[in-house]
Formats: sequence, structure tokens, C-alpha cells
Amino acid sequence: MKLQVALDTLSLEACEELLSQTQDYVDIAEIGTPFVIEEGMRPVKYLKDKFPSIEILADVKIMDAGEFEADKCFSAGADICTVLGVSNNSTIEGVVRSAKKHHKKVMVDMIEVKDLAQRAQEIDEMGVDYICVHTAFDIQNTGKDPLDDLKILNSVIKNAKPAVAGGVKLETIDAIVQEGAEIIVVGGAICTADDPVSATIAIKNHFQ
Amino acid sequence: MKLQVALDTLSLEACEELLSQTQDYVDIAEIGTPFVIEEGMRPVKYLKDKFPSIEILADVKIMDAGEFEADKCFSAGADICTVLGVSNNSTIEGVVRSAKKHHKKVMVDMIEVKDLAQRAQEIDEMGVDYICVHTAFDIQNTGKDPLDDLKILNSVIKNAKPAVAGGVKLETIDAIVQEGAEIIVVGGAICTADDPVSATIAIKNHFQ
Repeated sequence: MKLQVALDTLSLEACEELLSQTQDYVDIAEIGTPFVIEEGMRPVKYLKDKFPSIEILADVKIMDAGEFEADKCFSAGADICTVLGVSNNSTIEGVVRSAKKHHKKVMVDMIEVKDLAQRAQEIDEMGVDYICVHTAFDIQNTGKDPLDDLKILNSVIKNAKPAVAGGVKLETIDAIVQEGAEIIVVGGAICTADDPVSATIAIKNHFQ
Repeated sequence: MKLQVALDTLSLEACEELLSQTQDYVDIAEIGTPFVIEEGMRPVKYLKDKFPSIEILADVKIMDAGEFEADKCFSAGADICTVLGVSNNSTIEGVVRSAKKHHKKVMVDMIEVKDLAQRAQEIDEMGVDYICVHTAFDIQNTGKDPLDDLKILNSVIKNAKPAVAGGVKLETIDAIVQEGAEIIVVGGAICTADDPVSATIAIKNHFQ
């Protein structure tokens, strides 16, 4: 069970400071989509260089040109890159080809997939490493809980490992740990906490 | 009718050279998704500064955190940014809020939308500026033609203006011009041509 911290509201300097104080607790540092939009692969290269023992995930949410775009992430030093579950199978297959070529990993982000069970089963056959249920930031105020989706995911996948993202916080971590996920992604509950270092340690202490 | 050139396989220097020789023909310069993945908003800022009369589109394909991510594009100087048609309505609404705040524009990319007519009608009510039918790069070898989708789009939208992308080339431009689109996006047919400048001019000469 790994803790992935989504870094998308902090400056690069603040990310470096946070990781330097939490590197014994953070397994995967996610360069979030807004961070990629602003800076491209610069934070991927920089943080991989500074923290070689932490896995770096480039949350690029690939939707097309799968192999071409994934190549750019892995060449920059990313250990994992994301592709959207709503993308065409050809796109996901391209990202998988790129990952195998670079000996790296693929996470499929299931955000806004309409039939989660059916699409997860299809994607589970494609050789991806992780399938991530993800409650969009833009709908987190509707009360939707990623735990429900995690249960559906866990009931259908046989090859890929499960991941969960979207509004995960200290109050909801135990139920997720109990349901079981290979990767638990935490963003706001760490990055917008008064003390992000303490928040990281407190959350990781609930992991099994 | 505007020509949008998708820049996603050239270096920044090559883009600058191409635009400097074609600025009377290119209406919109698209900073393509792979370019954003590599460089973030740097090419947006750089090319807007060099070519203030050309509109700059940031092809960020937003899928979540609509207002937050669009703010980053418009703050960097983009005139138009893209959001995915498969994203949640809240996300598209967030991008529209950001665009109105910055007095900029929104293009919705309909790539992989399953029911194009129905989704285009929904999105047409949301205050977006352009709806773009888009045949994914990863399925362009299947013979799928964006012209068919453009006809569907044109038959249902009443507010937004139509755009078309995905494998558009000199041989297919006349049929698209005849069907009618506010923006025609051309990528590979220009950027991978032996002579991109001549290719740009040849294609633009078919516009009405």
C-alpha cells in the first residue's frame, strides 16, 4: 500500500521542502495536471533528480497520441504516467507500449467513465499497471465518495492493481485502507493543510 | 473561416520560423498537447509575445479543475483554451467562468464523445465559443473522417461555432470548407510537410 501525494497547488520550492521532510512517508510524488500545464516536465526532471528513491508520477491525463506523449513523460524521468479511461483503446495501448519500452508504469485514470465495472474489465486486459478510481475535483462538493467506486473496481479487476483518488482525507482513510488499494492518492488534505508535513505523517500512519 | 495550425512536433524555434513566414495565413497557432506536456505554458508566452496578432490556443484538453487550470492558460497569454467534451459539466462550466473573467475563449474538444449529437446539444447551451469535432490521432488510420462528425455538429448547434480537427489535409479541405466550419485545424499536413510554409499557403488558399 503506497501513499501518492498529488502536488498541484504548491510551488516547486515548496514541493521540494515538503518531500525533503517526508521522504520516509511518501512513496509516489505526483506532478499534478495544473503543475504540468504551467511547467511541463521541468518539475518531473527536477524532483526525480533530487529524490531518486521516490517514484514520480506525471499526471498528464493522456487522451490521444498515447505512445508519443507517454514517451515524453518517461524520457523526462517519470516512473508512472496517466492516461484517461475515457480515451480510445488505441491510445491506452500506445501508452502501454511506451511504458514497456522504457520499463516504466501506466496508471489509467477512470475519471468520468460512465460504466466503471465494464470499462475497468476491458482496461484490465490491456496490460496496464494501475487502474485509479477518481472523483473529479469539480464534483467533490456533491458528496460523491471514491470508496464506492473502489469497491466496484476491486470486484472486477484481476491483473491491474487498484488506486483511488479524489478528496481522500484523514477522516476517510481508514475505510479505504480496509477496502484495500495499492495506491492511495492524497492531494488537498496534505497540500492545503496548515502543516503539510504533519498531515502526511498522520495519514501514512493509518496505512497497513 | 480561420486556419488553426497545430504545433506539436516542431521545436519552439521551428514554430517561430514557420509563423514568421506564414503570419498572413495563420489565424490561430495551437500549442499542441505534447508541446504543453514538454514545456508547459512557455511556448504560449513566447509565441504570444512574438506574434501578438495571431491568436494562441493552448490545447490543454482540461478534464478536471476547469476554472483553476483555464486560469493558468489565460494568465499565460492564451486566447483560447480547450476542455474535453467527455468531462463533467461542472468542469466545462468552470472553464467558461475563467474565460469570461479573462475575456478569452473556450473550445470544447469532442474527441471520443460517444453520442456526438446529444452531447453537442448539451454543451451548446453552456456558453462555450467553439465546439470541435476531432478524430483522434490514434485512430486516424481506421479511415474515420471528421467530415461526417462536422455534418452532425452543424445540424445541432445553435450558439457555439463549429471547428474540425484530425487528419485534415489538402485533399480533404474542399469538402470541409463546403460543409462550413469557423475553425479548421491542420497539424501534420503542415508540420510534417517537406515545405511547411508552402503547405500552409496552399491550404489557406482553399478557404472561403
